[in-house]
Amino acid sequence: TVRKLFLLPGDGIGPEAMNEVRKIIAYMNAELGGSYETDEGLVGGSAYDAHGVAISEGDMAKAMAADAVLFGAVGGPQWDAVPYDVRPEAGLLRLRKDLELFANLRPAICYPALASASSLKPELVEGLDILIVRELTGGVYFGEPKTITDLGNGQKRAIDTQVYDTYEIERISAVAFELARTRKNAVCSMEKRNVMKSGVLWNQVVTELHKAKFSDVKLEHMLADAGGMQLVRAPKQFDVIVTDNLFGDMLSDVASMLTGSLGMLPSASLGAPDGKTGQRKAMYEPVHGSAPDIAGKGIANPIAMIASFAMCLRYSFGEIAQADALEKAIANVLDRGIRTGDIMAEGCKQVGTVEMGDAILAEFKSL
Amino acid sequence: TVRKLFLLPGDGIGPEAMNEVRKIIAYMNAELGGSYETDEGLVGGSAYDAHGVAISEGDMAKAMAADAVLFGAVGGPQWDAVPYDVRPEAGLLRLRKDLELFANLRPAICYPALASASSLKPELVEGLDILIVRELTGGVYFGEPKTITDLGNGQKRAIDTQVYDTYEIERISAVAFELARTRKNAVCSMEKRNVMKSGVLWNQVVTELHKAKFSDVKLEHMLADAGGMQLVRAPKQFDVIVTDNLFGDMLSDVASMLTGSLGMLPSASLGAPDGKTGQRKAMYEPVHGSAPDIAGKGIANPIAMIASFAMCLRYSFGEIAQADALEKAIANVLDRGIRTGDIMAEGCKQVGTVEMGDAILAEFKSL
Ligand SMILES: CC(C)[C@H](C(=O)O)[C@@H](O)C(=O)O
Ligand SMILES: CC(C)[C@H](C(=O)O)[C@@H](O)C(=O)O
Repeated sequence: TVRKLFLLPGDGIGPEAMNEVRKIIAYMNAELGGSYETDEGLVGGSAYDAHGVAISEGDMAKAMAADAVLFGAVGGPQWDAVPYDVRPEAGLLRLRKDLELFANLRPAICYPALASASSLKPELVEGLDILIVRELTGGVYFGEPKTITDLGNGQKRAIDTQVYDTYEIERISAVAFELARTRKNAVCSMEKRNVMKSGVLWNQVVTELHKAKFSDVKLEHMLADAGGMQLVRAPKQFDVIVTDNLFGDMLSDVASMLTGSLGMLPSASLGAPDGKTGQRKAMYEPVHGSAPDIAGKGIANPIAMIASFAMCLRYSFGEIAQADALEKAIANVLDRGIRTGDIMAEGCKQVGTVEMGDAILAEFKSL
Repeated sequence: TVRKLFLLPGDGIGPEAMNEVRKIIAYMNAELGGSYETDEGLVGGSAYDAHGVAISEGDMAKAMAADAVLFGAVGGPQWDAVPYDVRPEAGLLRLRKDLELFANLRPAICYPALASASSLKPELVEGLDILIVRELTGGVYFGEPKTITDLGNGQKRAIDTQVYDTYEIERISAVAFELARTRKNAVCSMEKRNVMKSGVLWNQVVTELHKAKFSDVKLEHMLADAGGMQLVRAPKQFDVIVTDNLFGDMLSDVASMLTGSLGMLPSASLGAPDGKTGQRKAMYEPVHGSAPDIAGKGIANPIAMIASFAMCLRYSFGEIAQADALEKAIANVLDRGIRTGDIMAEGCKQVGTVEMGDAILAEFKSL
């Protein structure tokens, strides 16, 4: 059966990075018996320029119908002043919300070849492999009211609302516990229950679900501010971290920076399994942004985008062996000292986006 | 004129640390012509045990009447199950709110003697001196509604509300700009304007105030998640960071951990200058918590509490020379290799809480 991939390269370095994934898909179709069918759309600033919105209804429909979406990056200074509702990020947020991609998986792994690139001492990050499971369709990102009101006396009032229902906390925690079972079997749940009611409920629901269904998994609770500290102090203490949308945004950025591999880290955003087919809606995207300063120069690092496609093979299509091989190809190429500018180190060979993609593809073929 | 200090040692290691400050106050009164008058109250778990609330009305009245409050720490496992409204943190939050201490100053400095204790590479933190200015009486900490509702079908809904008005953003930014002028003259404002309406308003108000009154100060804006990354990647790029209550909570914890000096870092929480006297209400407290695991053992590090008193001398009483001397005394004692257990290093001499306090006092006397 045909597997439908919808590509949304987006802005900045998104398109360049996506091209390297296309080569891998073409190879898999030609030589590995793959049946990936790709279609492509616009998102972010490029969609705004073409359609005046951050993603068109036509492209939304295609994203809904696809087996998986590959997303590049959005944003750039030329769109800093566009209206709030059609700013580049609105396209990303609409995709997450309408596809109900509530589970955002953000691995923070330290590629051995890059341990010395971390700002942390190498012994603290060597072998680091943590997985942040971030709630992605709730919380302050989407809660209403979300308004700015003119109070009339030169004063404005801005309101954002954090809302979480039991079921939202349950389903994201279940994902975290299930993934922990395939790893080191430990979950750390982070919230601010000492200040936020949503933190109180979060803590209760995670605790009860754990007791009812996942008592074999080690569970720890940590205040989110202390969690940020501990990520910097001793990141290897963690296996799976589960947290809400906004804390997940902050904590996953801190975690990714620890690895020395930022610009290399992929993510997966998953929906609930379909009642009939068991298939989850899914979107895969690099953690890094659109990097407008280096866009179009052919020097961007395509590894995060390629690693995001590896996550797609793993989570959307169950192609575990191929996903493993693609991840291994990335690690091998790095071990051989092939580097884009952002991860360049002494004694290594600096290459551009296309050469990096070619090197990974060649390695993948050879495995 | 008499200067009224109200001491709230709190729980855990709070009382032990506070005792070391008492010795310094006694010395200043006896030998330096100081006229500090101290009174003392209960806060947190110890107030709950005595009065069933996290701070009594009598102690609140004393805090309101004082020239400055010195606060130790609150919380501990024995109070984990007390009702939400009287949990230890409620005392701290009520003090902040009722005293209108909207400006929380959290310096993250790296004591040279401790640079190697950071989890970051020493060259990234040596000489680090940043100041986080955190809004402390608004945002999601205090916004209403803040509720958990039973939806009746086994589901609950938790709501927290982030609210910011123009004047709240203006007054905290003004503090940041003014402090920047006494430092490296640079402010970085952090929010999530790409997702939060309060971030949009925050960004606007800071930008306009800068233009109107502080255009001599360098101003930069950064998304809060990127800010967390940059703190880990290259913390020395910052001088003053201004941000909201919740982001400030997260970012200041990350920043304090960078320094290798956690357990050493003080903070000041300031109100607006009084219309008549110009005096600000103020509370000074260590960034570290109550550390119940080591409480009562005489091994806690009193430096953060003593450094908080130094901030009190500086900001509440304008005793700049004495504040400088006290901070210098701390640095000198560390340079001489005198350490509590939490910052112990090879070749140093390990001491307890009282000896550390004595050593700092002796050094302070000699300066
Ligand atoms: C671009 C932005 C809306 C987004 C977020 O805040 O979720 C980004 O920071 C991320 O983490 O994917
Ligand atoms: C104890 C807690 C309520 C407090 C906060 O969240 O503000 C603490 O983390 C802090 O940073 O002072």
